[in-house]
Amino acid sequence: MGPHPTVAAIRLAVRRVLHDVLAETTARSTADRTARSTAGRTAGGPGAADDDPRPLVLAACSGGADSMALAAALAFEAPRLGVRAGAVTVDHGLQSGSAGRAQEVAARLRALGLDPVDTVGVTVGAHSATAAHGVAYTGGAARRVGPEAAARDARYAALDATAERRGAAAVLLGHTRDDQAETVLLGLARGSGTRSLSGMAAVSGTGGRYRRPFLLLDRDTVRQGCLAQGITVWEDPHNHDPAYTRSRVRHEALPVLEKSLGKGVVEALARTAQLSRDDADALDQWAADAQADAAGDDGSLEVTRLRTLPAAVRRRVLRRAAVAAGSPPGFLFARHIEEVDRLVTDWRGQKALNLPGGVAVLRANGRLFFSPS
Amino acid sequence: MGPHPTVAAIRLAVRRVLHDVLAETTARSTADRTARSTAGRTAGGPGAADDDPRPLVLAACSGGADSMALAAALAFEAPRLGVRAGAVTVDHGLQSGSAGRAQEVAARLRALGLDPVDTVGVTVGAHSATAAHGVAYTGGAARRVGPEAAARDARYAALDATAERRGAAAVLLGHTRDDQAETVLLGLARGSGTRSLSGMAAVSGTGGRYRRPFLLLDRDTVRQGCLAQGITVWEDPHNHDPAYTRSRVRHEALPVLEKSLGKGVVEALARTAQLSRDDADALDQWAADAQADAAGDDGSLEVTRLRTLPAAVRRRVLRRAAVAAGSPPGFLFARHIEEVDRLVTDWRGQKALNLPGGVAVLRANGRLFFSPS
Repeated sequence: MGPHPTVAAIRLAVRRVLHDVLAETTARSTADRTARSTAGRTAGGPGAADDDPRPLVLAACSGGADSMALAAALAFEAPRLGVRAGAVTVDHGLQSGSAGRAQEVAARLRALGLDPVDTVGVTVGAHSATAAHGVAYTGGAARRVGPEAAARDARYAALDATAERRGAAAVLLGHTRDDQAETVLLGLARGSGTRSLSGMAAVSGTGGRYRRPFLLLDRDTVRQGCLAQGITVWEDPHNHDPAYTRSRVRHEALPVLEKSLGKGVVEALARTAQLSRDDADALDQWAADAQADAAGDDGSLEVTRLRTLPAAVRRRVLRRAAVAAGSPPGFLFARHIEEVDRLVTDWRGQKALNLPGGVAVLRANGRLFFSPS
Repeated sequence: MGPHPTVAAIRLAVRRVLHDVLAETTARSTADRTARSTAGRTAGGPGAADDDPRPLVLAACSGGADSMALAAALAFEAPRLGVRAGAVTVDHGLQSGSAGRAQEVAARLRALGLDPVDTVGVTVGAHSATAAHGVAYTGGAARRVGPEAAARDARYAALDATAERRGAAAVLLGHTRDDQAETVLLGLARGSGTRSLSGMAAVSGTGGRYRRPFLLLDRDTVRQGCLAQGITVWEDPHNHDPAYTRSRVRHEALPVLEKSLGKGVVEALARTAQLSRDDADALDQWAADAQADAAGDDGSLEVTRLRTLPAAVRRRVLRRAAVAAGSPPGFLFARHIEEVDRLVTDWRGQKALNLPGGVAVLRANGRLFFSPS
């Protein structure tokens, strides 16, 4: 008799991602060997830490149901594919006793057979976060950071540092389709367009380090998989704290949307994420090409070339130019770009505009100049 | 003392649209005169019905607050700009006594000084609608039609017919920013991507006939404007009937979203509509260009040219080709297009695919052929 159907679904999702990681690691190490034999170098590849030649994959685990299911599936699948399986758990230090909790989670992960298991402490302030193991991160300068964003930034900085230190080929994250739907709704509330609706990527981070095997699985499946395996889980009380926007989206907004719009809302939101991501990627590509086409040697943009672009592409080109000149993306809003756009579409001899980050935009001689003011 | 600020805002919105309509009508009639003097013809232009040379603009009016505010603002502004102002009210025949109601609304519109005022009856079935004045419309063949969509289709068919018969230069619709937000949420529930998130256009219909002056005004402003002018309004009970999806979105989903995500949700959704519309337009333009580029004389598509396109553009090209071959857009889902896409991106010698509407897709000799099967 095989495993419970939910356990089979969970393991399949992890197995597929491990196959991808293995294929890429093999391709990379072949390229490395070729490069080494050409250059006569002999250093070990990044997957070859601890003298074990097998690539290491880490599960990022909070101790909650989704990431415990992920860790268990990784522990089951990895040895069958010649992959080393480890885990990392982050202690945000936001509740008293959280360090003890993290140690408990780590013990459960070791009991699943994962090795190495790292516990990383981070300190989260409103505008910066410092990880205990020498990881320092300041996210405040380039964008607005609330407590949830600060915690997320600190978490990823800690995961990045752990992956580097361990030479991990990949870090798996337990986000489900329901998390994806929540992320799309949170992006929708920003009202900043297609990219903000694209949710989380299945592959992200430096060199595609982060993988989300559960992005197409619903939370119920993953949680039933935990139950079926008798896995002890710990529910983060923040997940139910209405002080957190995501918690309100999960427990208030999505249930009412399902009631109003029908049961398929989570699936529709997850599909919207994928379609929006593809659309945003295509438009970014067009904008990059158009920018290269319109830019002179000094980076200034030729107005006649901008004018013939569709509005959606033109505004992206203007945004790219502003960011390249030093305007911080998180402070650059649609209304700023619209004002710059009027230098192209509604030219009445306007004077130079000032953008966030002290960037000035000036139209002269049929060109737009973006420069630190 | 000027009018109440809400009344001023409402009138300004209508005045702006009338300016646009006038500018376009003037440009068109100049072109017409040039064409007539060239061709030696003498027929009157479309705006010249009833021997009155002024263009006619109609307000579409249900008798509710939004469209009564619209009608009143049109009655106020039009004479000042040399525009004739009329109205049309549609009786859906969905409640007993609706014919009498329509006559009451028409009387109120005439009392505002609007002339002509037409009352048009339509009969709405689940799959077809027939307007009383010889307008017949069948919407069932090309897409799935629920009762709300059938009523909408019937309404627009009746408005189109009235505009044609009266030679109207434009028909104004009273949709507010709140209606736009609801439309975006309804599109989101379909999960079919950027175009479905683009809501209602400020200008739409044949020759840009329909205009929505209130799309950037919130419903509260418009309703307060009605109160301030002492306008009698009639609330359609369907607007509060939880059997209707839009009513549930309005009275259940949006209030909870505002509670979870903050007060700016309606504005964020309306902004999403505009950004999504621009993005969808740009991608459609790219897809049209790419299709022309990849198509042979027989309309078949060259696979090598498709393969280098971003996924978002390639799928749009494939969709356009399928629709051009006769597949009905409303039945052509993402999963169909994904299957066609695999003929390009994952070619393993698949046999011909069958799409809705009896369209077959076949890959042969490095080309995709779309044909009625």
